[in-house]
Amino acid sequence: MSLPNGAQLLSEIREQPWALRRLLDHFGEYDRVGRVLRERGTTTVRMVGHGSSDNAASYGVYAFGLLPRWTALRDSITLGVYYDSDVDLSGSAVLGLSQSGQTPDVVAYVERARARGAFTIALTNDPQSELATVAQAVLPLAAGPERAIAATKTYLNQVAALALLAACAAGKAAEMAADLRAVSEQVEAFIPAVQPRVSEVANAFAYVGRMFVVGRGVEFATAREIALKLLETCRVAADSLTATDLAHGPVAALDPLFPVWAIASHDDALAAVLEAAERAGATGATLVASGTAADQVVGADYVLPVPQPRSPLLAPLLSAVPGQLFAWALARAKGLDPDHPAGLSKVTLAS
Amino acid sequence: MSLPNGAQLLSEIREQPWALRRLLDHFGEYDRVGRVLRERGTTTVRMVGHGSSDNAASYGVYAFGLLPRWTALRDSITLGVYYDSDVDLSGSAVLGLSQSGQTPDVVAYVERARARGAFTIALTNDPQSELATVAQAVLPLAAGPERAIAATKTYLNQVAALALLAACAAGKAAEMAADLRAVSEQVEAFIPAVQPRVSEVANAFAYVGRMFVVGRGVEFATAREIALKLLETCRVAADSLTATDLAHGPVAALDPLFPVWAIASHDDALAAVLEAAERAGATGATLVASGTAADQVVGADYVLPVPQPRSPLLAPLLSAVPGQLFAWALARAKGLDPDHPAGLSKVTLAS
Repeated sequence: MSLPNGAQLLSEIREQPWALRRLLDHFGEYDRVGRVLRERGTTTVRMVGHGSSDNAASYGVYAFGLLPRWTALRDSITLGVYYDSDVDLSGSAVLGLSQSGQTPDVVAYVERARARGAFTIALTNDPQSELATVAQAVLPLAAGPERAIAATKTYLNQVAALALLAACAAGKAAEMAADLRAVSEQVEAFIPAVQPRVSEVANAFAYVGRMFVVGRGVEFATAREIALKLLETCRVAADSLTATDLAHGPVAALDPLFPVWAIASHDDALAAVLEAAERAGATGATLVASGTAADQVVGADYVLPVPQPRSPLLAPLLSAVPGQLFAWALARAKGLDPDHPAGLSKVTLAS
Repeated sequence: MSLPNGAQLLSEIREQPWALRRLLDHFGEYDRVGRVLRERGTTTVRMVGHGSSDNAASYGVYAFGLLPRWTALRDSITLGVYYDSDVDLSGSAVLGLSQSGQTPDVVAYVERARARGAFTIALTNDPQSELATVAQAVLPLAAGPERAIAATKTYLNQVAALALLAACAAGKAAEMAADLRAVSEQVEAFIPAVQPRVSEVANAFAYVGRMFVVGRGVEFATAREIALKLLETCRVAADSLTATDLAHGPVAALDPLFPVWAIASHDDALAAVLEAAERAGATGATLVASGTAADQVVGADYVLPVPQPRSPLLAPLLSAVPGQLFAWALARAKGLDPDHPAGLSKVTLAS
């Protein structure tokens, strides 16, 4: 049974701090798999997923690149599964990301990679799923059942799971677990604190048909995820861009009716994001600034600051929240049902 | 001096067959670098670029994955250049893609990768550029000066260059050169043949504010490039999606005023593209079908078939053309200057 008026989506957004702590109950499993990866001499992690799972994988590129200093890539499913290319996978670990564990071509990719010598891991909210069955190791997302069509708590738990696994692989498991627990408390305080302001801002966007969401580095995943929430729950043509890619063409499309949401967080990519936001603002586009360094965005029309976590690497767990709440509030402002976007089902079985 | 009315962009689109043949004049250089890559035991190719160069890199994933069967990835510039992550690069080749050879963070990435043991190659239209100076090998794009802001012939030559280099690395240099020459002849006949029909279709899109461009596998690069042309020259909020990602959320945003362009070409990913197009069509969205299998898209409102090249891997060289011509015609239909998108300059020096 679904509650009216987007109550399902909102309750899942609010549940996120508890979902994060449930993930930490599985610390031992993550630590064990991290150790296996180290012992196998892993240097390449191939991540596969669609939608929010693929957005989380964008974060994984940085988590593995910064912690164990491995190359993590969002691998092409088409290359292996459809084109049957025989790329050497023997030194690789494979992470199949799927909330349901049923995404057909992710299952097929993992099965195929295992047969070709990769060490395969299923990262899924359903440890009994087909994906879990075909992989050598299973890491539970432990987000609890997610009933709203749009992923929220499973996305946040995927990001946290990638940070945790990367830290375990780097021999920094305990610090990361402590940092994640601290973030779960920040998320818990942040959600009720930011919600009224986000709803107010969302009302001003009721007639917006298109948006860019801009981030760079660890926050590029956040930009992708916020754009996807806007697309699926608010029917806004929202495109995510890295700060620099905005300047390579798309900035030409901007005007006062084409707003830009910039995620500015404190890290070494901040200057590039601030510069991109300034260029966007110069076109007359309405500018929303979020992130831990939101207040540094010059000329922002709306500022949604995000608390600073102990580790800058974990900022995306907090930065996703205003986007989730914004999508929920904007869908309602537009008279759409945030729980049931048109034409979508929870488990996507399309190939 | 720039000609009025988008004549510059159109003349560069029309010049593409000759640009492709100029690239083939450098066959020996590509063959030499391909041999070096083989001799070094390369298995990983890291590609970096922005805008159209990054779109071409999406194609490189398949060219290297299918020909020498290497892992080619669009690497994170932020991870190395901004976050200074010490990922092991010793077994990697690096391809810096930049038309101008001046893109600051691409130059910085290549410099840094070289210092860390990667074999670095500059793929650029200016062999005297800074990028060429910092790399160990230089492969000229040989597209000739490109004056329109929107890349066309340099994009096509980047795609062809990646196919050629991948074939050289796989010991299939001569066949690929012959196939590319044949494609250049197909492109030459195709441009004048398809232009009147494309202009007619574009007129019907004068009031469109947002679009999806869908492709998969080798044609995902084409989807990205067509979306970028629409963004930068026509101010359409155009987003590119793989066929499967469309079903994971964004399909919910579609309606009769939100058209979808599907690139359907004959290869093993075709079924997934046809299925996605059908789902898009079911929402009432106007459907444009292009590609070598355009006629197989059920319910397409506009069909722009593309000639079949000898090698399916080279279809993107033909599939990009209707998108380029469409962007040119649509910009004119909207009263925009296709040669001078607002706020852009030819060389992007933003960080």
